[in-house]
Amino acid sequence: MAHDTQHLPEETSGADRIVRAQKAAADAGLDALLVSPGPDLRYLTGYEALPLERLTCLVAPAAGEPFLVVPLLEQPAAEASPVGGLGVEIVGWPETDDPYALVASRLPSAGRGLRRVGVDNHMWAEKVLAFRDALPGVEQALAGEVLAALRMRKSADEIEALRAAGAAIDAVHAAMGDWLRAGRTEREVGRDIADAIVAAGHATTDFVIVASGPNGASPHHELSDRVIQAGDPVVVDIGGTMPSGYCSDSTRNYCVGEPPADYPHAFGILLAAQTAQCEAVRPGITAEQLDAVGRELIAEAGYGDRFIHRTGHGIGLETHEEPYIVAGSSRALEPGMAFSIEPGIYLPGRFGARIEDIAVCTESGGERLNLTTRELRVLAP
Amino acid sequence: MAHDTQHLPEETSGADRIVRAQKAAADAGLDALLVSPGPDLRYLTGYEALPLERLTCLVAPAAGEPFLVVPLLEQPAAEASPVGGLGVEIVGWPETDDPYALVASRLPSAGRGLRRVGVDNHMWAEKVLAFRDALPGVEQALAGEVLAALRMRKSADEIEALRAAGAAIDAVHAAMGDWLRAGRTEREVGRDIADAIVAAGHATTDFVIVASGPNGASPHHELSDRVIQAGDPVVVDIGGTMPSGYCSDSTRNYCVGEPPADYPHAFGILLAAQTAQCEAVRPGITAEQLDAVGRELIAEAGYGDRFIHRTGHGIGLETHEEPYIVAGSSRALEPGMAFSIEPGIYLPGRFGARIEDIAVCTESGGERLNLTTRELRVLAP
Repeated sequence: MAHDTQHLPEETSGADRIVRAQKAAADAGLDALLVSPGPDLRYLTGYEALPLERLTCLVAPAAGEPFLVVPLLEQPAAEASPVGGLGVEIVGWPETDDPYALVASRLPSAGRGLRRVGVDNHMWAEKVLAFRDALPGVEQALAGEVLAALRMRKSADEIEALRAAGAAIDAVHAAMGDWLRAGRTEREVGRDIADAIVAAGHATTDFVIVASGPNGASPHHELSDRVIQAGDPVVVDIGGTMPSGYCSDSTRNYCVGEPPADYPHAFGILLAAQTAQCEAVRPGITAEQLDAVGRELIAEAGYGDRFIHRTGHGIGLETHEEPYIVAGSSRALEPGMAFSIEPGIYLPGRFGARIEDIAVCTESGGERLNLTTRELRVLAP
Repeated sequence: MAHDTQHLPEETSGADRIVRAQKAAADAGLDALLVSPGPDLRYLTGYEALPLERLTCLVAPAAGEPFLVVPLLEQPAAEASPVGGLGVEIVGWPETDDPYALVASRLPSAGRGLRRVGVDNHMWAEKVLAFRDALPGVEQALAGEVLAALRMRKSADEIEALRAAGAAIDAVHAAMGDWLRAGRTEREVGRDIADAIVAAGHATTDFVIVASGPNGASPHHELSDRVIQAGDPVVVDIGGTMPSGYCSDSTRNYCVGEPPADYPHAFGILLAAQTAQCEAVRPGITAEQLDAVGRELIAEAGYGDRFIHRTGHGIGLETHEEPYIVAGSSRALEPGMAFSIEPGIYLPGRFGARIEDIAVCTESGGERLNLTTRELRVLAP
């Protein structure tokens, strides 16, 4: 589990990433990529535009020069962003023009080489359908077919950014005893944690789950006004986005005072399963195999029907992205892939437990990016 | 401009809103609405789910019972949300099932009554295309065709929520002198404003524009490390989302010390134009007419080519929504519509100015929801 990133994909950024995306599009039979604001645009250009009703869109033909269409009033901001340094033409459209017609006019027509375009996976429906109507006869597919493959294989710089995100969220877990006490509500504790996530270096707090006692049995419980009781196991699942754009996500388990009598057995099984999964990370293992490593251990102990979700999700510029570590996925892991390993056991009406680390597949195995103890932490009540 | 909301659309919420949406869908020739997490789902159900890769979707057939499809692990959260009280069936799908096939199996087939469905305007492309493939032969349109018409006509309760948002952002503008000083960077000032937006009662800070001196000439400039100078006009455009879900948005103009000699003339024209537009709000005036009221005054003064954007945007559960106050829109205003009035004048390399209020169309005219002075505020340097 030592740092071992010397054989990761070569560092790429900006124009280089666009060129690779264009080549991948051509290989996948996509004649152009249409990328609106969101993580794909940020990955390809560094431009952090927000998705809004006016069209901003990177148009990357498989063969030809890419260009960025932006509302005229956003043009100065786009030029001041990293896009300005990429040598990509920025085309501003005036308020009352039709930007979809503008894009269509600069692409070959359906009969002349434009048969299939890839729209970014998060493009809003209103834009997808506007492009459908502006490009009649052109089939729409997902740009994720090619962009996910690029984004999934992180460079050494990207992994360093994820490592920094991991250290930042670890600092919050390390200080949990400052906030998590019996007599406080989940919401009060959650507010303190949210502040601490930013104080630890994140640009934003993305989610805070404080699931105490029976609330822990709902994997996506967030915060409630439930008062935390002595003896409550508490699942704390937190994450944020760093100024770099890369995300953190880690889950740890706490108990205010001593846990219920049947908790240690279930938690011990969970910890063994999560540890075995982290140790199983290596190039070539498939997502479904990695999922099964933990699921089988949990099932053998009789909790099979209490582990009600997949093992994990990829992470990078989004908290949830490819690769998903899930039954039915035969995707083989490769060096540079980063994802969560977060099995859980949920006992309705009683409690839940989940342990989550971000792991990176290296040439020789795996590296965990979250390094606080995975054991149950018993806090003073 | 007095409060005059007694004739606004009747208060509606929850199941009632879904029934109205179903009826509007039928009238518009849509056989079903498919609504994923976002403002449309929040409007129809009160459920504040985040858009994620797993499908959550309200399915509202034009004829038939609505149901909400959610990932199994989100089902407890969905049941605990306002959806739980609506009498809408909640259908959880297990992690490795295909939720699009599930939706298709519960709708009539393409040959038997399902010809055209409306997807919500913000639905991610990956979900739009998955529904396209799961519902072959079914035409996709935008649910916004019918939902925007409902959301646009605010009830008295919604306007009260917007009034509270307006008061909250007004409190931040009123205290601007605490933060905006020569010698500080835009970013430093912006950080204080962001904190103040939350302290004033917003749940989140959505945007902070502090555009000083020449940066003011870029309407969507955000924050930079530029140090504010004595004599800089500064455009401050800020907003957030209240715990109710409703948004604020107001722009005011400040100068640290005395402004440049040619600023007062331009600003005076702008103030006259914005005031005239606010006073022109009444039922029946069209969006393009309201836009023209200000645009003509600004053009007559010789700044026509310096007002480079539309007059405004609707506001509610989103900062930008229908109705847009823009040339080319013949939409007639109706009581209950809420929107920004924010003309601007931008002199590249010099400065910019923009005045923005949220206004509501009432039975008898308009009501401004932002009540801090619209005059230039000269702050001590």
